[in-house]
Amino acid sequence: MKEQGNSLLELGESVRKARLCRPRIHCITNYVTINDVANMVLASGGSPIMAEAAEEVAEVTAICDGLVLNLGMPGAAKREAMMLAGRKAAELGHPIIFDPVGVGSSGFRREIAEEILREIPCGVIRGNENEIRGIAGIYGIGEKGKLLRPSGVDAGPGGLAGEEELGFACEFMNHLARKSQAVIVMTGEKDLVADGNQVAVIRNGHPVMSRITGTGCMLDGMIAVYGASDRGHMWKAAAAAVAAEGLCGELAYEKICRRDEGTGSFRTYLIDFVSGLKEEQLTGGAKIEIR
Amino acid sequence: MKEQGNSLLELGESVRKARLCRPRIHCITNYVTINDVANMVLASGGSPIMAEAAEEVAEVTAICDGLVLNLGMPGAAKREAMMLAGRKAAELGHPIIFDPVGVGSSGFRREIAEEILREIPCGVIRGNENEIRGIAGIYGIGEKGKLLRPSGVDAGPGGLAGEEELGFACEFMNHLARKSQAVIVMTGEKDLVADGNQVAVIRNGHPVMSRITGTGCMLDGMIAVYGASDRGHMWKAAAAAVAAEGLCGELAYEKICRRDEGTGSFRTYLIDFVSGLKEEQLTGGAKIEIR
Amino acid sequence: MKEQGNSLLELGESVRKARLCRPRIHCITNYVTINDVANMVLASGGSPIMAEAAEEVAEVTAICDGLVLNLGMPGAAKREAMMLAGRKAAELGHPIIFDPVGVGSSGFRREIAEEILREIPCGVIRGNENEIRGIAGIYGIGEKGKLLRPSGVDAGPGGLAGEEELGFACEFMNHLARKSQAVIVMTGEKDLVADGNQVAVIRNGHPVMSRITGTGCMLDGMIAVYGASDRGHMWKAAAAAVAAEGLCGELAYEKICRRDEGTGSFRTYLIDFVSGLKEEQLTGGAKIEIR
Repeated sequence: MKEQGNSLLELGESVRKARLCRPRIHCITNYVTINDVANMVLASGGSPIMAEAAEEVAEVTAICDGLVLNLGMPGAAKREAMMLAGRKAAELGHPIIFDPVGVGSSGFRREIAEEILREIPCGVIRGNENEIRGIAGIYGIGEKGKLLRPSGVDAGPGGLAGEEELGFACEFMNHLARKSQAVIVMTGEKDLVADGNQVAVIRNGHPVMSRITGTGCMLDGMIAVYGASDRGHMWKAAAAAVAAEGLCGELAYEKICRRDEGTGSFRTYLIDFVSGLKEEQLTGGAKIEIR
Repeated sequence: MKEQGNSLLELGESVRKARLCRPRIHCITNYVTINDVANMVLASGGSPIMAEAAEEVAEVTAICDGLVLNLGMPGAAKREAMMLAGRKAAELGHPIIFDPVGVGSSGFRREIAEEILREIPCGVIRGNENEIRGIAGIYGIGEKGKLLRPSGVDAGPGGLAGEEELGFACEFMNHLARKSQAVIVMTGEKDLVADGNQVAVIRNGHPVMSRITGTGCMLDGMIAVYGASDRGHMWKAAAAAVAAEGLCGELAYEKICRRDEGTGSFRTYLIDFVSGLKEEQLTGGAKIEIR
Repeated sequence: MKEQGNSLLELGESVRKARLCRPRIHCITNYVTINDVANMVLASGGSPIMAEAAEEVAEVTAICDGLVLNLGMPGAAKREAMMLAGRKAAELGHPIIFDPVGVGSSGFRREIAEEILREIPCGVIRGNENEIRGIAGIYGIGEKGKLLRPSGVDAGPGGLAGEEELGFACEFMNHLARKSQAVIVMTGEKDLVADGNQVAVIRNGHPVMSRITGTGCMLDGMIAVYGASDRGHMWKAAAAAVAAEGLCGELAYEKICRRDEGTGSFRTYLIDFVSGLKEEQLTGGAKIEIR
């Protein structure tokens, strides 16, 4: 499963490929951040289609190049739509990005996540630490023997993301990646991207990213765009998207500081910087280490 | 019901407490402004969770600290979810903010509002004049004997908000607060916050706030954050949130004038100023009078 | 059907009338861009109401002045709501704007579009080239004998919008307008507005408008506002809205270039410029030719 022949020094390649391919991404996502996701898919070079009626999702997926399944604001109808779209995307070999938003918040979300993980071959699972722990719980993987019940949606500080825990976290992530056969992306203070054999540790980004809603959901869209533009290299695509959003978050944060602005402007600038991101900017600005 | 021991000269306290507590707010709200509400909850120090499936709302509410019920874009499923979440929040003693968006626009909205008011102990009811009149109608309270049928969603000029009507308006608001056992917030040209014994008359804000969608819905989120961070002082928390949003609206308006911008930028700056609001800024900038 | 007595040199009139009338627009639209649509209705002078429950849509439409039906993110319940609202709006003579978003993406969307076109007298049908071709297909009108199956949601380059095809495109648009008895608006590289006898060819706008989501949906809202403020002149109202959004798109693009910003800021400025648009600015800035 270890990706070959891709130097992580060339992350910027993902930016270029996405703008060349302009992949269509079918998103079944939550209504809180659905507009941000669509704009971020566009900003990173793709073209979003949102559809979630059982009557049409398989047909819509069939004209797309990738699929995002986001667990936020779940419902019975959306669950059915996710399964139908997921199966079709799997049949067509499309990259599928699964975001288990708030999977620890309710039994209903956990049940849907279990069904998705059982039946849909997800290429990437992305969440904050609580959500990734929730997924690990589904696969029966605890944290040092004790799996804390995660609650809520936001990323918390410390935990697996702490510097002193890095070795353990990488091992945990690779283990989960092998179990799930998916690239695992855990975002937080630093971001980890594991494919089962190697972990990209990415130190881009800024804490203010957790003070707006949607940075995670937007990242899902970017991963789908990069992944659909570079089939077979999901690990690299995911790492590139994580580094790209983080780098743009840093630039947006610098800009609001310089101009004495706040989180409303931050959100706008984050999309600005992604829409203008250059290949060499990402290659040069990514703070990435392979473990 | 008159709140004791809280000097309104210290409204800024709410800003500080919210940032310390970082309460989780469960929002069942409309899809028009759902993203704005989430971002405003974050900007004012809280953490939003949106969930509206009957399968999970009680469980989600149970891990939160406050609940927002917003009548915009109602539906049968959302109605059921509001009742389930409302009952659980009541059981747990969480502050519940009810926003009867467009309650006068249809019999369906009025019916849901009646059910909520009958069964859920709302801590705060917030609306524009039309909506508060609609609520008064449900409690059988007319305006000077004649209750005009309210229509539509936007705040109109004049009416109860007029300076010459202030005495009557305060009496009306206190009467409604006693009947409903809720703090009543009526936003408009000036904003009134009544707890049944006293009315905070707040003269912050700017008319341009009615030229973007969502200032009311965002205010609901802020009231929930401030209220959940200062249990038992809903009147003060509501007044602080109203003054805070109004003050930030003034600052955002000054900024778009200075820069020759419009309502798109106004919305961004409103969130900016809330995210950067300082305790002393609110205490100093609130234009509040107690009646 | 040819509109009389309206000089297109006075497009700015629509801006003034909208701000005087402040029409209420009932929107049944998709959740991706619903917030943008509401803010654009407000920015162009109207007042939006979003409602889509079968229980209330007819009642809500009855207190409004115009209706937008948007096919994005369709569902069975929304379909029913669109039919109920559409029939009521027709009964009351309200202008109805239909946007067949992604009509070529699924049989389900096509089926709903067919039902709407069969039963609801739409005043305006607006889409990109693919969508307008899809509508033409429903009316059995091919493009030069061969009707390409449209796919997806975004506007593609070239095609009917190309300069060399303009004569054919105008003929096609007028034919479709006569068949559907609606004003047809096709947006793309240049925008065409046909009433069956004449076509306004509008050369405002900028390609970056297709790099954010929602410019089409927002335009629907503006057309509804302008149309509801000038009953009986839908062709002129549609042309004015198209030129107004395009002109504001040009101004927003200039501004992001000057300030080295991206698509996030572009979206904000687009709403800014519409909210501040002046009558004479539109009359002077519209690049319009009548064919």
